[in-house]
Amino acid sequence: MAASMLKVAVTRLSRCAQHCSPAVRMFSSSPPHSQGVPTALWKLGRLNHVAIAVPDLQKTTALYRDVLGAHVSDVVPLPEHGVYTVFVELGNTKLELLHPLGEKSPIAGFLQKNKSGGMHHICFEVDDINAAIGDLKAKNIRLLSPEPRIGAHGKPVMFLHPKDCDGVLVEIEQA
Amino acid sequence: MAASMLKVAVTRLSRCAQHCSPAVRMFSSSPPHSQGVPTALWKLGRLNHVAIAVPDLQKTTALYRDVLGAHVSDVVPLPEHGVYTVFVELGNTKLELLHPLGEKSPIAGFLQKNKSGGMHHICFEVDDINAAIGDLKAKNIRLLSPEPRIGAHGKPVMFLHPKDCDGVLVEIEQA
Repeated sequence: MAASMLKVAVTRLSRCAQHCSPAVRMFSSSPPHSQGVPTALWKLGRLNHVAIAVPDLQKTTALYRDVLGAHVSDVVPLPEHGVYTVFVELGNTKLELLHPLGEKSPIAGFLQKNKSGGMHHICFEVDDINAAIGDLKAKNIRLLSPEPRIGAHGKPVMFLHPKDCDGVLVEIEQA
Repeated sequence: MAASMLKVAVTRLSRCAQHCSPAVRMFSSSPPHSQGVPTALWKLGRLNHVAIAVPDLQKTTALYRDVLGAHVSDVVPLPEHGVYTVFVELGNTKLELLHPLGEKSPIAGFLQKNKSGGMHHICFEVDDINAAIGDLKAKNIRLLSPEPRIGAHGKPVMFLHPKDCDGVLVEIEQA
């Protein structure tokens, strides 16, 4: 894995700059809101967080706080979720460092397969989670629980099956 | 992996809400800027993007555009990086979908190990990449190239070794 990652870095060259985002034409399946008609039942919002599972919470907290200079929270035990969490505040979003709490932690299996740790899931905010859930079901996206649960921020959340999201575990959270 | 992910979702319960972020005390190793003295040689900034490697770029683009309702770019070929890229705009940051371009694509190995795709790296902005590089070297963080390269956004970037970042490939980019 490190070898392929190394290749990503060493092949970053300068000549591509002019092809990239400033001139990229953006489009979506929805007509513009300026037409004044409802265009969708729900709307995708901000990236709420990136969750990272780590085998040594103190060590990773020190990495983000002392090496990278980020603001980090105290350790927050969430026994109902089977994790200890540390929130790493960035300017526009946050990381959530997750470490197993208890013998049945839901991230224990992930860490057995990824012993150094790794990115576990991403969470998007939505403006109407119930509308989103209904729409996603209709579009054949499998959901990981029959109803939304209350997540770590006190708001309803739902996880989408990673096999229906091209290998990524996606959480949606009521904004 | 799906089983452990499932556990994450189904164990999301409501009772933890009161323990979480609103009351979390934040701290960092740096004194507050209000003291009027330079506190660090460089500063960590926003999360610029989350990169996701995908085996079928059209399919994943359709997922984000048609199912999740995000604004997505056209496909941008970056032959110098060995990838095709699609930018998925969120309210506060973006995803970069990566698909191999050419026989020596740097993400081919990652996709061989993660056939459904997966999160490949995260990118943080920094206000002074040269200061950051010098500081990170002094703190024994291994870098994946001897000098910064110009990245996909036309700005200098550097990758940090995932073994020194607890399993996560971290890119830093000049803001």
